[in-house]
Amino acid sequence: MNMLPTATAAEVKALRALNTRGERQRQGRYLAEGDHLCGEAIREGQAISLLVQTGREEQFARHLHSGLPVQVLSAKAFSQISDTRTPQGIAALCRLPADAGPNGLGYRVVALNGVQDPGNVGTILRTMDAAGFTGLLLDRQSADPYSPKALRAAMGAAFRLPVCQCDSLADQLREMDGYDIIAGSLEGASFYQRGPSGQRVCLLIGSEGGGLSPDVLALATQRLRLPMPGRAESLNAAVAASIMMYDFVRVWEQP
Amino acid sequence: MNMLPTATAAEVKALRALNTRGERQRQGRYLAEGDHLCGEAIREGQAISLLVQTGREEQFARHLHSGLPVQVLSAKAFSQISDTRTPQGIAALCRLPADAGPNGLGYRVVALNGVQDPGNVGTILRTMDAAGFTGLLLDRQSADPYSPKALRAAMGAAFRLPVCQCDSLADQLREMDGYDIIAGSLEGASFYQRGPSGQRVCLLIGSEGGGLSPDVLALATQRLRLPMPGRAESLNAAVAASIMMYDFVRVWEQP
Repeated sequence: MNMLPTATAAEVKALRALNTRGERQRQGRYLAEGDHLCGEAIREGQAISLLVQTGREEQFARHLHSGLPVQVLSAKAFSQISDTRTPQGIAALCRLPADAGPNGLGYRVVALNGVQDPGNVGTILRTMDAAGFTGLLLDRQSADPYSPKALRAAMGAAFRLPVCQCDSLADQLREMDGYDIIAGSLEGASFYQRGPSGQRVCLLIGSEGGGLSPDVLALATQRLRLPMPGRAESLNAAVAASIMMYDFVRVWEQP
Repeated sequence: MNMLPTATAAEVKALRALNTRGERQRQGRYLAEGDHLCGEAIREGQAISLLVQTGREEQFARHLHSGLPVQVLSAKAFSQISDTRTPQGIAALCRLPADAGPNGLGYRVVALNGVQDPGNVGTILRTMDAAGFTGLLLDRQSADPYSPKALRAAMGAAFRLPVCQCDSLADQLREMDGYDIIAGSLEGASFYQRGPSGQRVCLLIGSEGGGLSPDVLALATQRLRLPMPGRAESLNAAVAASIMMYDFVRVWEQP
């Protein structure tokens, strides 16, 4: 196993740069870090150009069996490319998937407007993948689904769901014909008193602080709020999105 | 403002120790860090013995107006007591509330069995506080609601909701008379096909990996699963708990 090539300083630097969104876009690649995510990336057929790992080869033997090229990093170099405090010592270098475009998201869409926390974006992807939602639309004010934190929270869902990132969410929504666009808002009727939805649904989620921007909100066919009979005045954005998604699951499940 | 006393090295050390659960228990205190949490702690009438802050007094003037004693820490000392990478420079030293006991949780309870992630415990408290749940029961395998990460995720809900921490969740559940104990499980009937609940509800949530332990599961009056029509095999624990809580809100809201 000592025959595995070692990454050069320049290669480590290029990997490290992938912690920023701009550099992921520029290089057209992202890093899926950790044993679980690497396994999911391989299983889901992501375009992986390289596995990088620290010297503890035996631990990751099952990934090596995948026949992918491998480079070895020192523990110190790995900690530089890693987003976590205690890295597991393995990461897969993957090609950023082509943008799905607004017409490639299927008929059960979640659209994010300024959801800046990467953990929330990842958690929303994870719930979408469980609930049977088919595609994620998000603006550039929302966190990148291919950031390390978002990938971690998504638990592999980012490999399975099509994603469309756009400059103007309002413009993209206008291109989506025949969707019932349901805005999760702090105002409006109770989410549980909403009217029936057609087959095509787009659930709009805004930031915890700012909510949905006026141009996006104006495109909603229904503006609904989750009731808060308790004392808290807001919910975590990923929690609110998940509650709404699952209420659709409940309706879809009905005979 | 330069008349504010400066914390000694020993005092800084005692504050720093509050990052561990054992030391919070031993000292009977916890730190609520950050401008928002300090404001909430004051507003909710937490027993605050001290505000600690860095030299930037003017920023926190509204807390000083509360008349609480204040100590000043250097930015370096503050970063040692802080749980965050970029501390805001203010924290409130609060007395740990007395344990509510199993009979002090009200009639809408959430019970946690080995939910180890402090962010999840905090997020569950936040949703409870929005949804009108009345008290949190949790075992010692679950994360401490008064840890810095849990407090941050709870957004003040930890100051408002009674909490009972116990060695044996099963023993505590046996003491709770007349509750419909509903287990969120990976098996059983669909959560949406459940039978009607009485006025007293206890929602049981296990860890993402291990689920509920057998002795706890055996006490459930209903064992229910959230359907997952998509491809993901699990949900984040706080998300699953929140979805279930809000489905009760939906039912309670019905005329």
